Amino acid sequence: MTVYRVDLAYDGSRFHGYAKQPAVRTVQGDLEAALEPHTGGVETFVAGRTDRGVHATGQVVSFAFDGALDTDRLRRSLNRRLGPEIAVLDLAAAAEGFHARFSATGRAYTYLVLEREAPDPFLATTAWHIGRSLDEEAMNAAAAHLVGEHDFGSFCRRSGDRSTVRLVRHAEWSRRRPDLLAFDIAASSFCHQMVRSVVALMVEVGRARIDPGAVPAIVAAADRSVAKGTAPPHGLTLVGVDYA
Amino acid sequence: MTVYRVDLAYDGSRFHGYAKQPAVRTVQGDLEAALEPHTGGVETFVAGRTDRGVHATGQVVSFAFDGALDTDRLRRSLNRRLGPEIAVLDLAAAAEGFHARFSATGRAYTYLVLEREAPDPFLATTAWHIGRSLDEEAMNAAAAHLVGEHDFGSFCRRSGDRSTVRLVRHAEWSRRRPDLLAFDIAASSFCHQMVRSVVALMVEVGRARIDPGAVPAIVAAADRSVAKGTAPPHGLTLVGVDYA
Repeated sequence: MTVYRVDLAYDGSRFHGYAKQPAVRTVQGDLEAALEPHTGGVETFVAGRTDRGVHATGQVVSFAFDGALDTDRLRRSLNRRLGPEIAVLDLAAAAEGFHARFSATGRAYTYLVLEREAPDPFLATTAWHIGRSLDEEAMNAAAAHLVGEHDFGSFCRRSGDRSTVRLVRHAEWSRRRPDLLAFDIAASSFCHQMVRSVVALMVEVGRARIDPGAVPAIVAAADRSVAKGTAPPHGLTLVGVDYA
Repeated sequence: MTVYRVDLAYDGSRFHGYAKQPAVRTVQGDLEAALEPHTGGVETFVAGRTDRGVHATGQVVSFAFDGALDTDRLRRSLNRRLGPEIAVLDLAAAAEGFHARFSATGRAYTYLVLEREAPDPFLATTAWHIGRSLDEEAMNAAAAHLVGEHDFGSFCRRSGDRSTVRLVRHAEWSRRRPDLLAFDIAASSFCHQMVRSVVALMVEVGRARIDPGAVPAIVAAADRSVAKGTAPPHGLTLVGVDYA
């Protein structure tokens, strides 16, 4: 058995999310269908399952296959079949025991917020259009309270009985253009809708509806009912996955 | 009568070109329909009529209206109705006699070419995906031969009896990313499909199929039959219009 690692980018607006579902177009569904003629069918594992509308520029998938694959030929074939909505950036044999999800030690996401009044036709599917300027400094004061190991239960949907403790290594807003804010966050892993939930809270801070000083108590509550909603999926992109 | 100037951006992949046509969605059709409740219907004039699939980040439109318009309110209303495919970046009363097309002294376009093998899902509708690296230096040597006043008849579609002499002020390739080439060209005005035709020629130069030294003779022929085809529309964006 050889494990193969596939690095993917995709435009989430064209799919009903990453995970395979019957009767709708998904990234996993398209990828496995494109692999099928080469492998006879394999099960794939993904580093960060993205929701409907969420994009990726640095997604990682792995699969095991008992046989020799010409990775250059396979990569070209996949790009012809899957492009331009999905791009195979790299495809290579991985170290023994590699698993896209279980071997990952960190994930990084970026969330874009367009402040200006006029929409941007070229960011329509990749940035949340707020239509007013936000207080970046206050948002960064709020973001700083997210860094570290916390129970992120206030920002997790469908946590069930599973732990919602996560280690956030980095969380920072910066301006990509005078009218475009980007939030970069890196963590060990994320619970469901965690990035979109913290973005919704920080945008409330940026609108001066919540003081950044109120954020530690919202985190400490570890209770979904104190959250401030969920930012729309289309502003979110999985930008990278770390492996030790 | 007051003349109003409207600065627009639009995603050309959503429209059958700029110019109004029956039964299909066009930028002009959408814009005039959105202006109608405010003006009772006006004729609009555009600086650079773009073909189907061609984008704009700096298009200019003008219209004359006999009466007072609240330009802030109108701009917000147009953005609500036209966004996100069309953005009204600015809307203001212009100097007397202003005409978006006839007052323009120059137009600038950018054409994007993606070189890497894998597609880029986020440039699928705004860059021509070539899939191999091109010789930027040779393309710039070719571009230099376009600068100046020439008869661009080799690069004009449907010129009819009209002059195809144009003054190209600037023509240059640069790398936006390691895998993304951008061609910036500015001229007094452009004949139909001129940018896409010169891009097709220069990409042949970049593939080493044509020597840059052959370009002056192709220009001098002023004959469409010596052209090297037309680059696809979706790589092209009208980025700005100059007024004296």
